[in-house]
Amino acid sequence: MTYGTRIATAIAVIALGIPAVSHAQLFTLTREQMIELTAQNPFDRFPDGRPKVPDGLIERTRGLSAEEVFAVLPGKNFRNQFADGFQILHPGRRLVGRAFTVQFMPLRPDLDGVVNARAKAAGFERMTNQTAIDMLQPGDVLVVDLFGQGENGTIVGDNLFYYIMKATKSGGLVVDGAIRDLDGIAEMEMPAYFRHTHPSAIGNVMISGINIPVRIGNTTVMPGDLVFGDSEGVYFIPPALVQQVVDNADTIHIHDEWTRKKFDEGKYKSSEIYGSPKDPALKKEYDDYLKKRLEEIRKTYK
Amino acid sequence: MTYGTRIATAIAVIALGIPAVSHAQLFTLTREQMIELTAQNPFDRFPDGRPKVPDGLIERTRGLSAEEVFAVLPGKNFRNQFADGFQILHPGRRLVGRAFTVQFMPLRPDLDGVVNARAKAAGFERMTNQTAIDMLQPGDVLVVDLFGQGENGTIVGDNLFYYIMKATKSGGLVVDGAIRDLDGIAEMEMPAYFRHTHPSAIGNVMISGINIPVRIGNTTVMPGDLVFGDSEGVYFIPPALVQQVVDNADTIHIHDEWTRKKFDEGKYKSSEIYGSPKDPALKKEYDDYLKKRLEEIRKTYK
Amino acid sequence: MTYGTRIATAIAVIALGIPAVSHAQLFTLTREQMIELTAQNPFDRFPDGRPKVPDGLIERTRGLSAEEVFAVLPGKNFRNQFADGFQILHPGRRLVGRAFTVQFMPLRPDLDGVVNARAKAAGFERMTNQTAIDMLQPGDVLVVDLFGQGENGTIVGDNLFYYIMKATKSGGLVVDGAIRDLDGIAEMEMPAYFRHTHPSAIGNVMISGINIPVRIGNTTVMPGDLVFGDSEGVYFIPPALVQQVVDNADTIHIHDEWTRKKFDEGKYKSSEIYGSPKDPALKKEYDDYLKKRLEEIRKTYK
Amino acid sequence: MTYGTRIATAIAVIALGIPAVSHAQLFTLTREQMIELTAQNPFDRFPDGRPKVPDGLIERTRGLSAEEVFAVLPGKNFRNQFADGFQILHPGRRLVGRAFTVQFMPLRPDLDGVVNARAKAAGFERMTNQTAIDMLQPGDVLVVDLFGQGENGTIVGDNLFYYIMKATKSGGLVVDGAIRDLDGIAEMEMPAYFRHTHPSAIGNVMISGINIPVRIGNTTVMPGDLVFGDSEGVYFIPPALVQQVVDNADTIHIHDEWTRKKFDEGKYKSSEIYGSPKDPALKKEYDDYLKKRLEEIRKTYK
Amino acid sequence: MTYGTRIATAIAVIALGIPAVSHAQLFTLTREQMIELTAQNPFDRFPDGRPKVPDGLIERTRGLSAEEVFAVLPGKNFRNQFADGFQILHPGRRLVGRAFTVQFMPLRPDLDGVVNARAKAAGFERMTNQTAIDMLQPGDVLVVDLFGQGENGTIVGDNLFYYIMKATKSGGLVVDGAIRDLDGIAEMEMPAYFRHTHPSAIGNVMISGINIPVRIGNTTVMPGDLVFGDSEGVYFIPPALVQQVVDNADTIHIHDEWTRKKFDEGKYKSSEIYGSPKDPALKKEYDDYLKKRLEEIRKTYK
Amino acid sequence: MTYGTRIATAIAVIALGIPAVSHAQLFTLTREQMIELTAQNPFDRFPDGRPKVPDGLIERTRGLSAEEVFAVLPGKNFRNQFADGFQILHPGRRLVGRAFTVQFMPLRPDLDGVVNARAKAAGFERMTNQTAIDMLQPGDVLVVDLFGQGENGTIVGDNLFYYIMKATKSGGLVVDGAIRDLDGIAEMEMPAYFRHTHPSAIGNVMISGINIPVRIGNTTVMPGDLVFGDSEGVYFIPPALVQQVVDNADTIHIHDEWTRKKFDEGKYKSSEIYGSPKDPALKKEYDDYLKKRLEEIRKTYK
Repeated sequence: MTYGTRIATAIAVIALGIPAVSHAQLFTLTREQMIELTAQNPFDRFPDGRPKVPDGLIERTRGLSAEEVFAVLPGKNFRNQFADGFQILHPGRRLVGRAFTVQFMPLRPDLDGVVNARAKAAGFERMTNQTAIDMLQPGDVLVVDLFGQGENGTIVGDNLFYYIMKATKSGGLVVDGAIRDLDGIAEMEMPAYFRHTHPSAIGNVMISGINIPVRIGNTTVMPGDLVFGDSEGVYFIPPALVQQVVDNADTIHIHDEWTRKKFDEGKYKSSEIYGSPKDPALKKEYDDYLKKRLEEIRKTYK
Repeated sequence: MTYGTRIATAIAVIALGIPAVSHAQLFTLTREQMIELTAQNPFDRFPDGRPKVPDGLIERTRGLSAEEVFAVLPGKNFRNQFADGFQILHPGRRLVGRAFTVQFMPLRPDLDGVVNARAKAAGFERMTNQTAIDMLQPGDVLVVDLFGQGENGTIVGDNLFYYIMKATKSGGLVVDGAIRDLDGIAEMEMPAYFRHTHPSAIGNVMISGINIPVRIGNTTVMPGDLVFGDSEGVYFIPPALVQQVVDNADTIHIHDEWTRKKFDEGKYKSSEIYGSPKDPALKKEYDDYLKKRLEEIRKTYK
Repeated sequence: MTYGTRIATAIAVIALGIPAVSHAQLFTLTREQMIELTAQNPFDRFPDGRPKVPDGLIERTRGLSAEEVFAVLPGKNFRNQFADGFQILHPGRRLVGRAFTVQFMPLRPDLDGVVNARAKAAGFERMTNQTAIDMLQPGDVLVVDLFGQGENGTIVGDNLFYYIMKATKSGGLVVDGAIRDLDGIAEMEMPAYFRHTHPSAIGNVMISGINIPVRIGNTTVMPGDLVFGDSEGVYFIPPALVQQVVDNADTIHIHDEWTRKKFDEGKYKSSEIYGSPKDPALKKEYDDYLKKRLEEIRKTYK
Repeated sequence: MTYGTRIATAIAVIALGIPAVSHAQLFTLTREQMIELTAQNPFDRFPDGRPKVPDGLIERTRGLSAEEVFAVLPGKNFRNQFADGFQILHPGRRLVGRAFTVQFMPLRPDLDGVVNARAKAAGFERMTNQTAIDMLQPGDVLVVDLFGQGENGTIVGDNLFYYIMKATKSGGLVVDGAIRDLDGIAEMEMPAYFRHTHPSAIGNVMISGINIPVRIGNTTVMPGDLVFGDSEGVYFIPPALVQQVVDNADTIHIHDEWTRKKFDEGKYKSSEIYGSPKDPALKKEYDDYLKKRLEEIRKTYK
Repeated sequence: MTYGTRIATAIAVIALGIPAVSHAQLFTLTREQMIELTAQNPFDRFPDGRPKVPDGLIERTRGLSAEEVFAVLPGKNFRNQFADGFQILHPGRRLVGRAFTVQFMPLRPDLDGVVNARAKAAGFERMTNQTAIDMLQPGDVLVVDLFGQGENGTIVGDNLFYYIMKATKSGGLVVDGAIRDLDGIAEMEMPAYFRHTHPSAIGNVMISGINIPVRIGNTTVMPGDLVFGDSEGVYFIPPALVQQVVDNADTIHIHDEWTRKKFDEGKYKSSEIYGSPKDPALKKEYDDYLKKRLEEIRKTYK
Repeated sequence: MTYGTRIATAIAVIALGIPAVSHAQLFTLTREQMIELTAQNPFDRFPDGRPKVPDGLIERTRGLSAEEVFAVLPGKNFRNQFADGFQILHPGRRLVGRAFTVQFMPLRPDLDGVVNARAKAAGFERMTNQTAIDMLQPGDVLVVDLFGQGENGTIVGDNLFYYIMKATKSGGLVVDGAIRDLDGIAEMEMPAYFRHTHPSAIGNVMISGINIPVRIGNTTVMPGDLVFGDSEGVYFIPPALVQQVVDNADTIHIHDEWTRKKFDEGKYKSSEIYGSPKDPALKKEYDDYLKKRLEEIRKTYK
């Protein structure tokens, strides 16, 4: 049985809700469970039920900053979606893609035995980091809870990093844990956020979930969240809020343009212009500018 | 419907494997799932499948130290069962009981909605820390993953601590998070291990699992594990290893007795006696002593 | 000129608003400034304008816990009044008294020269920790910002601690810095909260303010605040809220009494009784109990 | 009333010593107070009394390193003028300018009310970070005590950073707190030193002083200090020592030149040349070189 | 060959300066080397050259506090003799005794082979923590550099702790590392200072020196130093300064007595009495008191 | 006496085993001691006995990564040879060279006196950081234990860094401590690993050993170890394992080449190719590739 066949079988197995793969925490969610947990998703879904934020929105998100996500999420009561404190592989490059989540826990032989028995029943040799990596799709960002481990918490070295880059089309990696082969990895273009680097291989851990809700820092990440990273940290955006975030960002960008133009004139104190202009004439000037520019920008999104 | 009726219904629901409560991570395990995950348990089980280490073994464990657990577990490849770095309410008093696990995650309104919908379907008003606390049994130790939170990570104050003490018959509490009302709690006898204290109430979190595998520090805890705490930290002992741990501890206790008796004689350097006596005559003296004392002790275990 | 005379003169000088002592940050506030900054104080004041929470309320506060202060302050938008992370000299003993604040900054000879010139003009030899300590009144708690220093950040050793205990009638000490002579100090009964201990003497710092607003951790402390410490940390309560805090605490105490009485009956799940009883009959029982007990307690406050 | 008029009025108010603005800590210093506190300043002053280190000296300082400041200050008993542990926006670019200080404290509604009442009396809408930012002059470095806050401790985002860059002619920013919009800010040339970045806006704090002495790490900073930053950290140099620091640095630069020239010859062990040459002939060679080069350099300072 | 014979031989070997044991760092010092390194020792020595502070002085030291050591050592340019940050087994009990030092380093098989070959040549089976422990004398404090290790850095458990207590007559233990069996150890009376506790056994380390200079925190400890611990931390006092420290402490004790007596009178501000009395009459009163009390105390030291 | 003469004399003195320089820890090892401690060294040695890994192997090591060292050392029971947590001067440039070790300890005047007396006896003025630096050879990496000090733990500034770069031909520097003059040093090409930077000069420390075993983080470093640093940290490789490390790295490099070539084909899941190909045909393809490429590479090493 080739790998392709095996994974197809596994997906079929999942789709059929066969018990061996129906337990969320130690393997994954059924399609029905995934849909229930992400019921607010307004977009298409992958065969396994994971929300699929459209490519067009992903591209528009690339122009954002963390502040522009912050401008929307807390107001919608999503106050725990930003994680920071990472080492960032390429601080100048944005990370954008759909969350593919993996959860590890400290190795415990009795549980690990169950996990591997289930994996075997689903056609895999055993459950390893590569089992998850081999499921990645173009546009995915691999999001891994390795509970902050350095030594032995190394999700990938340069070879598997290379594989992920190819498989996700440079989607990206966020690991609350470590990577190895930093010098080799630094030569590749895919964005990555990690806590540590260490020359050791991954070990003394077991996979406890694939595409289940995971915790990264003080955030809860759902499979299918839009992952957005800049030089400050990483935002996990629920699919239902993506459209609003990118639309609102257009306004912020225009506001920034206008504000700096005014500052360049050198005639105003900051408080006369920013947050919003105090003078009614200036306020009108800004409103007109905003309207015109929004129209220009929106035209490009057709 | 009284609480008693509701919880009975809920248990029945669980036993029947009705879908609304069958998703491991966001609610709990079915009895079948619990049995699969704890297949090596040699003892009876609670109605929900949780292993029930016998009361007699729990009592024998009360005479142990963390070192005596350490003497067995790593050798059986359980290397990640000890957690430390806690504040300990009563350092001189042992914590011993059966793990009842609860997992929290950072609040996320979309997921929290699903959790509460499921709770409602199972007859609860909503899912809170008290939903879990109300399920505790005599001999239980409440083990809570609140991911190290201080402010807002306070699983209980003195009133609910008092309730837990009554419900578990002073079983105990281990929280990778905080408690509040420390002064009030300090007057009660139940053992407790916590990371922080804070006057705030619990908030900005949601329950993501009851009696599922949880991570406390670098350990993986299973519902039904025997929880053992002394002044160094907490051990989570798989039921399958409990008998061996307590039996082996008898030998260690006798070895300690004999060693100190010899040291008291003042005739020997430490290396002549300890780890094991070098001199064949001494070795025989020790072996005889061990045999005799083991027989005496074992007689008391009828 | 005896010390008594000198300090009287200094107070007179302050009362007259003479320029040499009118700069807040490098010396102290005039009476007028103090009154302006603490305008909401509903109580009497010391001659220098510092609010004087009445002794009776101080005594009632002694029965509180940090949670009972927390029950009131955040709701009044005072969200930054609790500081923790201290070593506590006597964890079982409450700290209660009026804040007398002192601010130190890293020594800088040019500024220190100005401070000492002003001190001399006011009749002091030079400005030291003892200058401030000698101004303490019965019921005061000395609150010191030594910006977390250990070595050289030792506000007092056992002799001056003894003096403060006598002068404040065991009011107390809170220092975001250190003390020395811990063994000697541990034998005295006055409550104390500190970050470190170190055998060195205070040094490499200068006083930059006496009875001005100071920062302790993430709190802003005003002279005259009611300082309340338990085994969790320290609350700085604005005088205007003290009455409400202690009154509300009576209700909490009664609620605790009733809740535990109910838990003792062993008939209820925690959620049937706590936070508030769900059953209307129980609710009425509680309301009657509360009313009766409040009357009993309030009678004792005449 | 235009902004210009308002600020002029405010300065007039300050100059007249009107009580509402005479308290150092909760607003600012009068011109007289500023002059008293910075009495050793040998240079001109701004209208509000703040020392104005001449532009020429500022330019010469740009060629220094922290070690060359260290070579002078501790010897003059200024041992607490260096702060490190910052994130540095452009590590390769020197920060040089005159300190404009701002102090924040944790928000406390009663005090914040007083601050804003005073601000209103002086013609401002309310007291915010922009109130201070709008007072900046060319050559200023904004030095902000935000007591190390990350979330909510963000003094500016990219728009206000842009304004500061324009207003100070790229003077700079040092904040014991955070900034937001790091990616946007990173594209601008102004030097900046900060503890954290966070997408949140500034909040839960209040301004407690503008151009008063502030503490940054273990340093005391005075308004008008010459702020010097390199890739190691930030030095706050009292105006009275600036001339000596830059003059002495000339000697150090020449010493470095000569030392490396000698090392390049490859004939000497380090200890024969450095700290100072042991051989009398070499010593003379160095002395001659120093004299000649000093003359050359000093000529360029006309 | 009994242990006694073997160790006698080993000491003889050392005394003869036989090469196999002459290398300081990986075994120990010869008597000659020890004497050279501790040349300022004014007291007797052990056979191996280690300074032997007399028992009488050790007893007098028991009445000291860290501050009284601090009063002498920095003034003699010994500024690095105080270590803190320890967990203290019995905070109320003083630690006093002669330093017996042991240094560990991370295990490296090639070096460990050399160490063990040397140990074998000197008549030991191999070099372990017990090799050093078996050399302890009454009045010794075992001072161990285990470079701050927790797991595997456990110098002893309760059995060897018991042995050390017997062998040193409750001298004590200072370990920059860990102990195990905390509950068992806590029942014994010997003072102990340690960084961590952990249930693991010592491992992954090797002994690199016995009775050589070692580093504990930021101190350098010499074999034979007088080790003094109170609830703040540990002082390592060079033998040459012990007499001066205890003599000076007498004066400090009397000064404390007199100061508090004066404070008890309630007539004085602290600055009139302490540091030293300002009033000439009071100064004379103090001087007379000091003289009288010193005579009384010194009489007891026959 | 020129420096050259003096150092020659010193080496002669060492070679003769004259007592003044025979104590390992407070000065250095004799040639005999060095040979004993590094007996497994398969290569030539320096006159003082330090192993001299050949230049050719050093060059081959330059192409490695930390992971390739990790692939060999733990398997040979060298588990403590990797140190990380450093600031790295030039993260993209490999550090490779022979360890020249220096150990500092906190200053203690009595011991420092002995050290300097010995230094004088060996013809040096006194023992300073430059005494060690002047002994460096081309290809050396200076490895310094300054026990993590920042302030006063600055082994060199830019002048001595320049000297070391010249003397070692850009070998490198690893200091468990600090450097000063970071901006000046950053312009030079020599690799450097350090914990901190600080403008202060080295002070309050003393040299306790040159070319003795030292501890850097959790590693034990021997003089003559091959020091290898990449962007993750520093490996100290025992000479006896260098050949095996570089030979094995050839295989890893080829394995990486082949793996990525396969990944580039886009036909395989990662687990079909990596760690080793599952399909026998692919396995053979890889084996043939490996053989061919190894031959090609090995040819270049002639």
